[in-house]
Amino acid sequence: MKALIRITLKNGVLDPQGKAIENALGALGFAGVSDVRQGKLIELDLAAADETAARAEVERMCQSLLANTVIENYSFELVG
Amino acid sequence: MKALIRITLKNGVLDPQGKAIENALGALGFAGVSDVRQGKLIELDLAAADETAARAEVERMCQSLLANTVIENYSFELVG
Repeated sequence: MKALIRITLKNGVLDPQGKAIENALGALGFAGVSDVRQGKLIELDLAAADETAARAEVERMCQSLLANTVIENYSFELVG
Repeated sequence: MKALIRITLKNGVLDPQGKAIENALGALGFAGVSDVRQGKLIELDLAAADETAARAEVERMCQSLLANTVIENYSFELVG
């Protein structure tokens, strides 16, 4: 089973990477681009047998390692 | 209009960040996790009037700045 995890900065948390992308896009002539935020995308394969177990396991992974829940939100979906 | 862009490493390209996450998950006791890949997730707001224009603009952004198409794939969706 494959998990697709999205980790994004919470609203209000400064995002210097996003700001750098926004400035670079502006410098390249892309007008009207705003509110650029950069997050992480993590894909992994799980050996978990059923979806409930997989969901609980990915939840624990996010809480304990993948996301910094003070400043980041996470969401995920299971495929296959 | 909001664009959600996913940038992932192509198959076969070494992913040391993914490997580090895989090792860390193993060290934390998560068994059966394999094939961990880390990508980027970029959200941005566009001023483009219609979806066709927005799609073309995001495509050009990915090609010229956001993705390194030698080693990365990108995909995106438009919302709102």
